[in-house]
Amino acid sequence: MVPLALEQRVIGVDVGGTKILAAAIGPDGTLEKGLDPVTTDVSSQEALLAQLDGLVEELRETQEIAALGFGLPSRIDQRTGRAVASVNIPLEGVDFRDRMRERHGLMVGIDNDANAATIGEWKAGAARGARHVVMLTLGTGVGGGLILDGRPYRGATGSGAELGHIVIEYDGPECGCGGRGHLETFAAGRAADTAARRLYGEGSGARELVERAAAGEDDAVEALAEIGRRLGAGFVTLVNIFEPELVVVGGGFGKAAGELVLAPAREALAREGLAPARDTVKVVGAQLGGNAGVIGAGMIAYEALDGE
Amino acid sequence: MVPLALEQRVIGVDVGGTKILAAAIGPDGTLEKGLDPVTTDVSSQEALLAQLDGLVEELRETQEIAALGFGLPSRIDQRTGRAVASVNIPLEGVDFRDRMRERHGLMVGIDNDANAATIGEWKAGAARGARHVVMLTLGTGVGGGLILDGRPYRGATGSGAELGHIVIEYDGPECGCGGRGHLETFAAGRAADTAARRLYGEGSGARELVERAAAGEDDAVEALAEIGRRLGAGFVTLVNIFEPELVVVGGGFGKAAGELVLAPAREALAREGLAPARDTVKVVGAQLGGNAGVIGAGMIAYEALDGE
Repeated sequence: MVPLALEQRVIGVDVGGTKILAAAIGPDGTLEKGLDPVTTDVSSQEALLAQLDGLVEELRETQEIAALGFGLPSRIDQRTGRAVASVNIPLEGVDFRDRMRERHGLMVGIDNDANAATIGEWKAGAARGARHVVMLTLGTGVGGGLILDGRPYRGATGSGAELGHIVIEYDGPECGCGGRGHLETFAAGRAADTAARRLYGEGSGARELVERAAAGEDDAVEALAEIGRRLGAGFVTLVNIFEPELVVVGGGFGKAAGELVLAPAREALAREGLAPARDTVKVVGAQLGGNAGVIGAGMIAYEALDGE
Repeated sequence: MVPLALEQRVIGVDVGGTKILAAAIGPDGTLEKGLDPVTTDVSSQEALLAQLDGLVEELRETQEIAALGFGLPSRIDQRTGRAVASVNIPLEGVDFRDRMRERHGLMVGIDNDANAATIGEWKAGAARGARHVVMLTLGTGVGGGLILDGRPYRGATGSGAELGHIVIEYDGPECGCGGRGHLETFAAGRAADTAARRLYGEGSGARELVERAAAGEDDAVEALAEIGRRLGAGFVTLVNIFEPELVVVGGGFGKAAGELVLAPAREALAREGLAPARDTVKVVGAQLGGNAGVIGAGMIAYEALDGE
């Protein structure tokens, strides 16, 4: 008889505002059987939960499954397993973990999407084997996640690691969250959109800016370097706090802009960070792309199993 | 026979640039037998080490001691137990932990002074019982320490938690460390000195500013409130990252300025931090004053025993 642990599989589900990825995930973070992405049903909370149930049931038809993990674009209360509030999807004040546990009769782990992506990169991507990791996801805004002393860090109730909302400029421009001068305001797609519109007019955006910079246009290169230097100020804050082994940079804008943003950010860190961390830390690109979240959700399911 | 654990005591030693505190510390953080403070012998590394040996031996004459803990104003490499570099004392590139272990035949733990003070407040002071704590020590500069998920956080090699060196103002004034716009530049005694000299002339300083503010002079109150608002920007960064239960504020300037600085900092956090942390976190004063470091050093000795 094969020991149960060897054939144990879990399901990871990455719930985004526009699409949902669901897959069977192996214990080492291998994406073993992924369903085709489906468009998120945002018509109501009931409809969305039913859609998630359907994906879980479809994967269970062909595979023995031991636990479920969900990455949600939501504020999570880990004490209760509640999705308190969400961005772009209709989940608010729902006891998500209990609901899924009862519905499917399996152990369930949940986390927000940024933590799930960080755990994915840590278990199976750019941060494999590291014990101290800062991850920044540069999309329209800035998401973040932390692995500290070999464990995901979530804060007192699960709302920690909001790395996009660190202050870079005292009394600076208002952030979408109500704060001022946050990293998210300066170092992500929205800042690139603003720079592009300034340079090329209202119809332009981050994509054009990156394309022009990649083609060597000075104005565009400098605009992305300015974003990079401010990202570098964020690196200084985070590296001085955490002395991490790695800073992993992912996200759509992060991937598209690449070294055009990362090189000036690294230079700022080397110039203004504290020794020894500024010299020992590696700043690297994420490796799993759009699969980081679903793989991380799977690892969160294994975490729930371990805590059983 | 009384079980050994019940009578087990350790020695904590808090090494400062001007004075050294040494005491026998009980397992709950009780300062049981403290020696009178002695002036730090900074004449040479050998002289300082001999002075520390003498203090340990004096305490061992009257008490069974199981381990030693040292808080040092130094950059520590926890992997090797080395004091890599120090501020104001002649310890540089010395294998401090091995040296003390061999000399005294006991388990030895070491840490930097800011971490030791944080651990002291956590075990026996303002942060007792909490699992997620940010501590800021506002003296001439800003020191910091972190308790995360119920454990001291030290970074990959022991250089983490440099909370005074987070960026508050992009491209701001140069910090003593070589960075720019760091919290330490804006939110501690040195900033108060600068404000006092601006208001009252070259001979003035932080102490006069605080006295005048306490007496109700508007200019002084506003100058400290400005320092408080910038401290508040630091709170926003740290609370958004950590979602801690507590922010503990200690240090000589922190204690002297008290609510003159803390009230505006709390207001900035309530206005600009993220929910739920901005509403649930408590910002409190440190309780152990000058004894936090020696008590924390004792707890680091117990930590070394546990890891034996």
